[in-house]
Amino acid sequence: MERIPILRMGEFLLVTIQVDMHDRLATVLQDDLANRISATRARGVLIDISALDMVDSFIARMFGDIAQMARSRRPSPALVGMQPSVAITLAEMGVSLTGVRTALNVEKGMALLRAKMEEERADDHAPAE
Amino acid sequence: MERIPILRMGEFLLVTIQVDMHDRLATVLQDDLANRISATRARGVLIDISALDMVDSFIARMFGDIAQMARSRRPSPALVGMQPSVAITLAEMGVSLTGVRTALNVEKGMALLRAKMEEERADDHAPAE
Repeated sequence: MERIPILRMGEFLLVTIQVDMHDRLATVLQDDLANRISATRARGVLIDISALDMVDSFIARMFGDIAQMARSRRPSPALVGMQPSVAITLAEMGVSLTGVRTALNVEKGMALLRAKMEEERADDHAPAE
Repeated sequence: MERIPILRMGEFLLVTIQVDMHDRLATVLQDDLANRISATRARGVLIDISALDMVDSFIARMFGDIAQMARSRRPSPALVGMQPSVAITLAEMGVSLTGVRTALNVEKGMALLRAKMEEERADDHAPAE
């Protein structure tokens, strides 16, 4: 098994990380994700990391890329199910998750992204000052 | 990583199989799933197997248990993303999936289960003959 499946759920893509990420798998996932995002025009990407209990440099790099996705605004990423040990290690490694939504579980993450999209739609329709 | 995460999506539970199933992991998944089903009163369970390209006896046994779940009716299981090689191997191994819904992807599987539930609700409300 050489790929992490990317599931489509309406306007969201869902990825569940549950295997140890080695270099090649992380690269394949990022390529696959980029392709699926452009093919589906997804508006949000949910990454479930509840099965992760440790972080190494590959995971940290992936999180850095997710944060970059957040800054470019589309699609909005959310990290769900982050364990305290993972959050602590990321902070210790100096990985910034500025702009990335985090939630306890997939349902809450989806609700967060939906709320964010509603907000953006309202902004788009607001009259210019 | 010792557990396969079970994600809750409304009235459904979603499991993505993406690691090689060994005996202990399959047992842990089944126990976890049973606990989550009773805790959440889920009405459907979606099992995404798009990452599986081969089947061994542990996987086959798991599929047998899923079929048994289908016969007991609640919660309704659906297997999504089955690759042709997997379907062929299961048939060769004599594993019967009678009653198990199958779909190309999670979205279609969810739609199938929703349709099935609507049907059952209609049956429940139909006058006795």
